[in-house]
Amino acid sequence: MPAFDLLLADVDVATMVDGRYSVIADAGVGIIDGQIAWVGAMSDLPANDVASRISLPGQWLTPALIDCHTHLVFAGNRSAEFEQRLGGASYEDIARAGGGIMSTVNATREARRDTLIEQTRRRLVILRSEGCGTVEIKSGYGLNVDVECRMLDVARTLGVESGLSVINTFLGAHAVPTEFRNRSDDYVDLVCNEMMPAIAAQNLADAVDAYCEPIAFSPDQVRRVFDCAATLNLPVKLHADQLSDSGGAALAAEFNALSADHVEYTNQPGVEALAAAGTVAVLLPGAFLTLGETQLPPLGALRANGVPVAVATDCNPGTSPVCSIRTAMALASSVFRLTPEECLAGVTCNAARALGLADRGTIEVGKRADLAIWEIGHPQELSYWLGSNELTALYVAGQRL
Amino acid sequence: MPAFDLLLADVDVATMVDGRYSVIADAGVGIIDGQIAWVGAMSDLPANDVASRISLPGQWLTPALIDCHTHLVFAGNRSAEFEQRLGGASYEDIARAGGGIMSTVNATREARRDTLIEQTRRRLVILRSEGCGTVEIKSGYGLNVDVECRMLDVARTLGVESGLSVINTFLGAHAVPTEFRNRSDDYVDLVCNEMMPAIAAQNLADAVDAYCEPIAFSPDQVRRVFDCAATLNLPVKLHADQLSDSGGAALAAEFNALSADHVEYTNQPGVEALAAAGTVAVLLPGAFLTLGETQLPPLGALRANGVPVAVATDCNPGTSPVCSIRTAMALASSVFRLTPEECLAGVTCNAARALGLADRGTIEVGKRADLAIWEIGHPQELSYWLGSNELTALYVAGQRL
Repeated sequence: MPAFDLLLADVDVATMVDGRYSVIADAGVGIIDGQIAWVGAMSDLPANDVASRISLPGQWLTPALIDCHTHLVFAGNRSAEFEQRLGGASYEDIARAGGGIMSTVNATREARRDTLIEQTRRRLVILRSEGCGTVEIKSGYGLNVDVECRMLDVARTLGVESGLSVINTFLGAHAVPTEFRNRSDDYVDLVCNEMMPAIAAQNLADAVDAYCEPIAFSPDQVRRVFDCAATLNLPVKLHADQLSDSGGAALAAEFNALSADHVEYTNQPGVEALAAAGTVAVLLPGAFLTLGETQLPPLGALRANGVPVAVATDCNPGTSPVCSIRTAMALASSVFRLTPEECLAGVTCNAARALGLADRGTIEVGKRADLAIWEIGHPQELSYWLGSNELTALYVAGQRL
Repeated sequence: MPAFDLLLADVDVATMVDGRYSVIADAGVGIIDGQIAWVGAMSDLPANDVASRISLPGQWLTPALIDCHTHLVFAGNRSAEFEQRLGGASYEDIARAGGGIMSTVNATREARRDTLIEQTRRRLVILRSEGCGTVEIKSGYGLNVDVECRMLDVARTLGVESGLSVINTFLGAHAVPTEFRNRSDDYVDLVCNEMMPAIAAQNLADAVDAYCEPIAFSPDQVRRVFDCAATLNLPVKLHADQLSDSGGAALAAEFNALSADHVEYTNQPGVEALAAAGTVAVLLPGAFLTLGETQLPPLGALRANGVPVAVATDCNPGTSPVCSIRTAMALASSVFRLTPEECLAGVTCNAARALGLADRGTIEVGKRADLAIWEIGHPQELSYWLGSNELTALYVAGQRL
């Protein structure tokens, strides 16, 4: 075997192969050209040369975390609306006071590019400080060609700057903008005929998402968006069954979606469709909690049918002002009753699958060396502690960030 | 007026007087000898000398935060039990596997003093990094004279080291230790006749707490503990009505307790008793969430009767592994539906009252200069964002930490 560029030695490893901790105690990970070239017990260490060796006794090594569902690019925040809502204001009151998603759309449309970059950078830096090596970022607060492109360009720029893998998702079908009120089909025309081709031409998106809900877009409108994505060879995913059973999970499965996200109201046939299609269910406890929802996602059915389950922050200013993947993990345990092992799988191997990334999410030979090092006694602690950060180092493609 | 040692200038101030934001825009705070000597609009700044002036345009100043209910001193953690419970293990299974509160008691009894210091320091440093100037710490994992004293001594030591005000609470009546199984009255004798006098003699406690619940101590046993505290001139507080309506709030009020904590099951007469006694209700959303509770505290009745409401982390390894006051604030909003203004009052003026501290918790002349500076657009954001930290500076008694 050629020399290792780097050997992380004397560390307990949770490989997360098959979605389990799959622990190798007192192990090492050898890295060549940014990839994992060897992993095993230190007692089996091969005799080849090592350019750099770092000993990590008493620490744990896991795959770098992956936040597979965020709306990280936005301007301003909706804390005033949050206070009004908790003070008893109705949605009508809030809309009259200029709140709701359109207030974020207006703020994002009006923001200069460098303002968007600066505000988004703070959030991305928090995720990086917690061990995220890959972060998905959606558009969806522009709702016109220029600002949707700007949001995705900001995300690409911050990916380069931060050293993280930022995976872009085009979410033009997030809401019907005010100027298309009562003309949602016309807006879907704009999404399919102008926005998506422009974004594809500039290579600004890695996937296409839509929000399927009576307050957003109908299944037929989502089909048009997904058909258009297929013509551009873009994989799809769906905000599905969050507030009602809209058949969203089945719709996502019908298009072999990478993921169906939220899925609180998904019914048994929907779960079976996800299983058959290999679509990941992405659970978003921050939105559940912030909205005061009561309908829990069908975790038993998802487990029984072998649907891979991911967990993400859903970081957004309206329904999930959660900038912390560790908080999302802890809430997935306390609110959705996922085990810590399921939570860690949900932000590593299953999150990678939700993004269509076969090259990361586990510690295996041939995978990219995206690694997080922790000062903990066991990876269980990563969903147990709420509000602390035990990360000691993060590597992306073998480079320490 | 004599010269200000320090003037924090050009900052928006939420004074939290009367439990409201009580904002003074474009304000200044003048400090002399660690106390607030002046607060007002910059346009009204008096003409006296200023030794040091710091301009904070675009930032906010609030009272330093106060975490008024923690069990911060403990050894080890219970993440394995957390995983077992989420995996479906019963309490009996967990007890058989060595879990439950007695596992923390055993670990704490066995821990060396410097281990306890090191593990507790990490948690205290997180709270400090979030803007806490005062942290209450309870004993209760020793359950014998030596280790209860050691825990409180560790807390005192870390208070000096950290620069924070650490307020100690003796909680010998936390659980009946194994060696007193079926002899809980004998254990209460030990608490009253040996532990409390020893702790008072060494000035290790600022107050006395007890856990009133069928699984812990009866109201009559709590009365004995509180009567004993009265003879030693120690104020009392109570873990009350967390898991059942044990009449705990009324019992706390009967003894003019500083606070009644948890209070999920407190009934209307209990709320009225708290109001009449001026006892603070301390809400602990971390424990509610971790235990998967469903009975919400009687927030409407607390508001209607004018009971001051505080919010705290309850940081402990069994039921609230929450090391973050900001997380407790955000959860108090999302889980208990407190407004952000109520949350901020709950960790400033009302938390000070829950600790019997008249010298802090608001920005007023004569109060101690315990101040937090934030890079935010409005203090609403302090309960809105979950998992981020916008603190830029913390002052305790006028000294920057």
